[in-house]
Amino acid sequence: MRIRVLGIGMGPQHVTPEVAEALRGADYVLAARKAEHDPLLDVRRAICERHGVELAVVPDPPRDRDDPADYPAAVAAWHEERAAAYERVLARRGGTAAFLVWGDPSLYDSTIRVVRRVAGRLGADWDVLPGVSAPHLLAARHRIVLHEVGRPVHITTARRLPEAVAAGQDSIVVLLGGEPELSGLADWTVWWGANLGAPGEELAHGRVGDVLPDLVAARERARAAAGWVMDICLLRRGR
Amino acid sequence: MRIRVLGIGMGPQHVTPEVAEALRGADYVLAARKAEHDPLLDVRRAICERHGVELAVVPDPPRDRDDPADYPAAVAAWHEERAAAYERVLARRGGTAAFLVWGDPSLYDSTIRVVRRVAGRLGADWDVLPGVSAPHLLAARHRIVLHEVGRPVHITTARRLPEAVAAGQDSIVVLLGGEPELSGLADWTVWWGANLGAPGEELAHGRVGDVLPDLVAARERARAAAGWVMDICLLRRGR
Ligand SMILES: C[S@@+](CC[C@H](N)C(=O)[O-])C[C@H]1O[C@@H](n2cnc3c(N)ncnc32)[C@H](O)[C@@H]1O
Ligand SMILES: C[S@@+](CC[C@H](N)C(=O)[O-])C[C@H]1O[C@@H](n2cnc3c(N)ncnc32)[C@H](O)[C@@H]1O
Repeated sequence: MRIRVLGIGMGPQHVTPEVAEALRGADYVLAARKAEHDPLLDVRRAICERHGVELAVVPDPPRDRDDPADYPAAVAAWHEERAAAYERVLARRGGTAAFLVWGDPSLYDSTIRVVRRVAGRLGADWDVLPGVSAPHLLAARHRIVLHEVGRPVHITTARRLPEAVAAGQDSIVVLLGGEPELSGLADWTVWWGANLGAPGEELAHGRVGDVLPDLVAARERARAAAGWVMDICLLRRGR
Repeated sequence: MRIRVLGIGMGPQHVTPEVAEALRGADYVLAARKAEHDPLLDVRRAICERHGVELAVVPDPPRDRDDPADYPAAVAAWHEERAAAYERVLARRGGTAAFLVWGDPSLYDSTIRVVRRVAGRLGADWDVLPGVSAPHLLAARHRIVLHEVGRPVHITTARRLPEAVAAGQDSIVVLLGGEPELSGLADWTVWWGANLGAPGEELAHGRVGDVLPDLVAARERARAAAGWVMDICLLRRGR
């Protein structure tokens, strides 16, 4: 038995030749359905159709979104339920299965953790192929590099942005946002994007204090156009 | 006139459909020759042949490698000379030109800065398409995510690694190394790779204090196999 974790970037335009070849060699793709209508599942379906591989949809275990007191434990329990659901299908079907990961599998995605666990229990071989990530697509759209010459870039979550700012980071990429919480950073510069690579993509750039109202409006336009919104930004201290 | 900056990942296996399409629509690819035998130029040549586009090679201006006192000024002067060399070709030929950037253009690469300057002077349109970067390929090879659950990852250069360690970063990706300087980090964990995606690729992983001699030997094997070596690592505090 073999399991392949495949980065698909932000859609079919980013499916690399090695991922396409892995898809042709796979017996089926396993994917979770996260909601009644799951737009990222539609993208996966389109990729499977284009590469002639069956998509096997596994209902995702319900996740407690109410930010439980013990957050890491809740995430771990939810990963375990998801792993068990995949494991049942894998054990029954065998062969070569693939998982399609949005962006690159190494950033804020649980597939690697889940597959490591399942592959261990099933004694399956598994590997990972990289993809284009949201930070790189954001930078491409704004035609920028993520850091200043020879300096670092810090990638973090919206939840941990205040820590990064307090620690003196200058160039911060923020994922997993919700309504953007940039009000304390009026003098920073932002390069922002929503639904990058998808219909209704939106971009904004400027001094945070100046551009924040436009950005909030653009975020709502993106949501209205696609029915969902994912956004990311690079923040740089000063101008 | 149009200029396209195209991320090619770590070779032909990572050339995305949108980059392939951009190549088919380009009149020529501009590339610098950095040495008598430039292995990355060979990769660019192979990609151009596969996609049926002409490769126009521009000799790179000599760069002072002796770490001049005013490093940023020296880099700026060198970027300007390189820009002038490209500009002459672009002004003469016009049409749609493409630059192939190793990995993704947003990480430690000067192409975007150079093209911004040249495109401004020539009044040319320009855009950027993303690619698979070395950090993502490193993570894929080791089958890991770059950060701990919900936590940040810090991307920096070997030169600035000590700063990142002193500032308390836990997960640090280090590019632009030379002989690895990890001797003060014996109790950290390292995931390392050289010449990823190329013949003679090498990987190493473990407690820095245990794995460092193997890593140094593997680096020399990679250099011997390919005639060049580029390496990258993820460092995590503790185990
Ligand atoms: C669970 S993380 C997955 C990241 C993904 N593995 C990658 O490599 O980009 C999801 C977050 O990535 C960012 N993201 C993913 N796709 C995006 C898109 N198309 N446009 C803007 N941001 C996106 C958003 O910050 C979103 O909250
Ligand atoms: C000038 S930077 C360019 C990075 C590139 N733009 C990217 O997105 O990966 C070159 C550095 O990237 C890393 N690198 C690039 N290609 C690599 C490879 N095939 N294997 C290991 N490291 C690589 C090394 O740290 C090298 O010193």
